[in-house]
Amino acid sequence: MKDEITIIGTPISPYVRKVLAILDIKGVPFRCHPQIPFLGDDDFTRISPLRRIPVLRIGDFTLPDSTVIAQFLEEKFPETPLYPGDIEARARARWFEEYADDHLGRNVLFPLFFQRRVRPVVLKEPTDEAIVDKAINEDMPKVLDYLETEVPDDGYLCGTLSVGDIAIGSIMRNAFWADWALDASRWPRVAAYLGRLYSEPAIARLNKLAESMLGTSPKEHPAIVEKYFAA
Amino acid sequence: MKDEITIIGTPISPYVRKVLAILDIKGVPFRCHPQIPFLGDDDFTRISPLRRIPVLRIGDFTLPDSTVIAQFLEEKFPETPLYPGDIEARARARWFEEYADDHLGRNVLFPLFFQRRVRPVVLKEPTDEAIVDKAINEDMPKVLDYLETEVPDDGYLCGTLSVGDIAIGSIMRNAFWADWALDASRWPRVAAYLGRLYSEPAIARLNKLAESMLGTSPKEHPAIVEKYFAA
Repeated sequence: MKDEITIIGTPISPYVRKVLAILDIKGVPFRCHPQIPFLGDDDFTRISPLRRIPVLRIGDFTLPDSTVIAQFLEEKFPETPLYPGDIEARARARWFEEYADDHLGRNVLFPLFFQRRVRPVVLKEPTDEAIVDKAINEDMPKVLDYLETEVPDDGYLCGTLSVGDIAIGSIMRNAFWADWALDASRWPRVAAYLGRLYSEPAIARLNKLAESMLGTSPKEHPAIVEKYFAA
Repeated sequence: MKDEITIIGTPISPYVRKVLAILDIKGVPFRCHPQIPFLGDDDFTRISPLRRIPVLRIGDFTLPDSTVIAQFLEEKFPETPLYPGDIEARARARWFEEYADDHLGRNVLFPLFFQRRVRPVVLKEPTDEAIVDKAINEDMPKVLDYLETEVPDDGYLCGTLSVGDIAIGSIMRNAFWADWALDASRWPRVAAYLGRLYSEPAIARLNKLAESMLGTSPKEHPAIVEKYFAA
């Protein structure tokens, strides 16, 4: 189909799940091609110059970067908005998205996930426990202290569910998959907030899909993803 | 004045200049407090959790992150748009902004600028020539090869001047200040494109301001900036 939307990128990536969640919540049909970035060829570099996932494809139009894609989807499919209506609240939602994707994703989650899952499982190398220790005991607590002051008692960071919440929930989920545990007695508001987020039907579905892919061979992923979205 | 806009951050930063250029082009009055991020105190961390510049302040509302601020300014001051009207072109402009700010800024410009200007001038340490060599001879050529295929013969990346062009021009300018030279025979389209960008009055003004600050003491910066914008 000419205008069919394809998201290129494995749902194990929190950045891919962010975009898939937005499509699902908006009720927009899509296909997912579960690309793993370091297995991509030159064609992949052409559509994603930094070799990152996700990439969106509609006909001949391709677009990299989860934040750029999320904003594009909001403008193309404005129903069920995931950006607040108020200009200041919208800016805050984008800030939380940036904070999640950039700082929390790159500086906290990536070292943890890479050391605990990619190195031992994919690369058959030992985990560097000093890096894990820094991520869990130094960097993650600072993030949680910040979020604990920002998340409300009820609902979401900027009113109704927004792209900022989806981004934070996606990154955090991968930390759990790297055998990290949240101390709910130290950060009770964050714990309750993540509980609300992970009960959102679209997010729960995508987390379940990604969990079913963890530890399986990349060769099996296209079939797993196709079967999942066909169901 | 209650609704006066203050941009916190030194104009030597390409991210600060991006936001100042947008305000200038839109004709929005503003003040600039030339904060240097690593000299900020706890109050600065509170308004900029990642201790980055720029931060926007309007009354009690503060907002970090140049990309988030740029989009906020576009929505608050829609006249003289700096985001294309077409949804796909707008997404492309945001992609170029992301490519500039994130990859070009963080992975190419920062190592170069830090080694050639911050280490010898501010920290009184020797430059690591291996890092400079990689930035200039490996990473920057890849960026320029990519841009050479993307920039048009005339005009800008996504039609009229957009946030994507402003971001690219800002980052590149700091590379010139780190004694980098563009080989215009190898990348002629990029050279002509940057020439067009640096002739834009708002961008030319801000570059001149930043150049007048290079090599001066941070203590002198508030007076230089105040005098400049009062003129």
